[in-house]
Amino acid sequence: MKAALIVIGTELTRGIIQDKHGILVSKNLTAIGIHITEIVELPDDGSLNSILKALIKNNDVLIITGGLGPTSDDMTRLAIAEASGVPLVENEDIFLSLVNRMGLERASGANRKQALIPLGFKVIENPNGTAPGFYGETGTTLLIALPGPPREMEPMFYKRVIPLLRERLSLPEEERDEYSTYLIAEAKLEELCREADSTLSWGTRFQDYRISLYVSGGTKERRDSAINKLRDKVGPLRIVNGDIEALDALIATLKERGVTVSVAESCTGGLASSLLTSKSGASKYMIGSITSYATAVKREVLKVSDDVINGSGVVSQECARQMADGVRYLLKSDYSFSITGVAGPEKQEDKEVGTICLGFSSKERESESVILHIPSYGRESVRRRASLASFLLLNAYINGEDIKSIVSNWIIY
Amino acid sequence: MKAALIVIGTELTRGIIQDKHGILVSKNLTAIGIHITEIVELPDDGSLNSILKALIKNNDVLIITGGLGPTSDDMTRLAIAEASGVPLVENEDIFLSLVNRMGLERASGANRKQALIPLGFKVIENPNGTAPGFYGETGTTLLIALPGPPREMEPMFYKRVIPLLRERLSLPEEERDEYSTYLIAEAKLEELCREADSTLSWGTRFQDYRISLYVSGGTKERRDSAINKLRDKVGPLRIVNGDIEALDALIATLKERGVTVSVAESCTGGLASSLLTSKSGASKYMIGSITSYATAVKREVLKVSDDVINGSGVVSQECARQMADGVRYLLKSDYSFSITGVAGPEKQEDKEVGTICLGFSSKERESESVILHIPSYGRESVRRRASLASFLLLNAYINGEDIKSIVSNWIIY
Repeated sequence: MKAALIVIGTELTRGIIQDKHGILVSKNLTAIGIHITEIVELPDDGSLNSILKALIKNNDVLIITGGLGPTSDDMTRLAIAEASGVPLVENEDIFLSLVNRMGLERASGANRKQALIPLGFKVIENPNGTAPGFYGETGTTLLIALPGPPREMEPMFYKRVIPLLRERLSLPEEERDEYSTYLIAEAKLEELCREADSTLSWGTRFQDYRISLYVSGGTKERRDSAINKLRDKVGPLRIVNGDIEALDALIATLKERGVTVSVAESCTGGLASSLLTSKSGASKYMIGSITSYATAVKREVLKVSDDVINGSGVVSQECARQMADGVRYLLKSDYSFSITGVAGPEKQEDKEVGTICLGFSSKERESESVILHIPSYGRESVRRRASLASFLLLNAYINGEDIKSIVSNWIIY
Repeated sequence: MKAALIVIGTELTRGIIQDKHGILVSKNLTAIGIHITEIVELPDDGSLNSILKALIKNNDVLIITGGLGPTSDDMTRLAIAEASGVPLVENEDIFLSLVNRMGLERASGANRKQALIPLGFKVIENPNGTAPGFYGETGTTLLIALPGPPREMEPMFYKRVIPLLRERLSLPEEERDEYSTYLIAEAKLEELCREADSTLSWGTRFQDYRISLYVSGGTKERRDSAINKLRDKVGPLRIVNGDIEALDALIATLKERGVTVSVAESCTGGLASSLLTSKSGASKYMIGSITSYATAVKREVLKVSDDVINGSGVVSQECARQMADGVRYLLKSDYSFSITGVAGPEKQEDKEVGTICLGFSSKERESESVILHIPSYGRESVRRRASLASFLLLNAYINGEDIKSIVSNWIIY
């Protein structure tokens, strides 16, 4: 089922106001499984006529907003009547409501035009303005006209148009599964999806700390089997059901268990801490953090040993473990974690950009550390992905999982 | 001259994100006298091809955004080449810049597609991403292709597309002054600009940590006088010449003077520290930071006195001053600063959301503190603006300016 939207208003094409109907209509139609082929913004200059026919031909539903008022440049009703091959006729109900609203004299002037609708079309009442909407069929295409002002258009859209579409088109809900993926570049994810099952329909949406993945088509079994193949490819924790930030999953665990956390950072410079405190209510679980950018801070404040600093270096698993222990002792939290690595653009201590060591420490368990090799798409990207990896692994660590074995099954793209 | 805009992105036609290019392009083209005939949003599904020809026929200029990335659904370059009747050819300069950006191996994979442009078209460099833009003529129509992400598209549009169009229209080179403004909301800034001189042409561009301000029209004297009026309204440090981040100005001062800095944060939770370390070479000036989210960390690690904690409280100028002193002593930096306040959404200790205390400490001068009232547009916005204010004021403090008098002349919108 295909639909297009035409938004009419010279104030849009002159850049005076921002269109709001595009996102409203496309979001709500997409949600009931209708594919939007096109959203067109046009000035009030009559260019609608030439575009209407092509869009009617290519779509099952066409929604047109704006151009229904009483002024001379509002000519939507005429364009729709012409494209449908029917005359405009006065609708008695609309005329009566105009008379009620503005009196007989004004309703009989220029405003009377608003009582005209194409023959055979039905009225959509407008509780917030004078221009009603209308809908009807042209061939097999459903045409729906609505006024332009959002406070008039939106209630009419939700109350009348959406129910109309559901009822008249009797669309089955689309079967579509949603996942969140972490630490996979978008181009690589799309390649892996096609490899997993090229007959299914895949969609991705990049967000700073995850890529949302949508899959539709086939049977539920087929979609599940494709997702399982993907999971095998990328390893544990990397693809989860639903639209979830790794940070939110970690925060849920911290709150559920009623435990506190602290952070020691180096290359991420405070980013992980900033993210952990970005949600309100962070004081329930967040004690604080230390950014040990200079080596002296690692040594003197976090108590990383000279052996480690002079031996395996500040980008090492042993340094990460001692940083995590150090911050937990100093700030007195239940759990802690650390991030030290090379964010780039230059190598450090002969370690490649993207080399990241993460440490995890707890009152009740041995502290641990892992090393990751994150492909670099730039300094900020490495810092973001290192923070993200620390959230995924801290959550697993708190849940008692074996983080070394998790990481050994990761290939980070 | 007539122009149309095509915005490509399935995330738009599925209602996931709101288009920003429509208003930007139509506003700026209208300002130089170009009539926008149509703005079309399309999914990434290849439907561009059928629409391109009609729009080329009816317009003198056609701008197409999006669909230039390396994934399979990005097919703008092919559609433009076909509509223009020329083949795609690899552009050596683009390929070399891809190799520089991501290495030979990755540049030779799916990303290599980004080096292709239609034969005879010219490149528009993209300083913020991998996909460059390009432009060329098809018959008498100028076709311009730009990448979709606003942070890539917008600078390319202002720096290359607008001058290109002005040249076509034989408009003189525009006399246009550029400023960066800090801690002023966009709507308020626009209001202040109109008040300062409504005959000039003002433009703003929101970025996370500044709003770029452009002014054109009138004489240079008239524009300067309007800017001076604006400066009087908002107080010192808030409007500076050129396109400059406050953070970059601070970093330049730190490097120039060869001094080091540390940070103590509370409500910003590591954000200021994360920003200070976001640029490469941060180890030259950044020692580290302490996020004292819990009061115990303020007391035990930063040595804020019990008198202050139990008296004026943790959101107070005195607490900010002691936090700044504490972090400087512990981390041994030349300068330090601190941020404590109420990021929201809830009040704290009866202090309103947006109450922010900043402390500044140095080896050689008395430590100081100021209090700001930042209007809240949400938690992250308060945290961002508090960090930004700390960068502006630390820079002034290092330069020996009187920060109390600066702040007393601020009205933060």
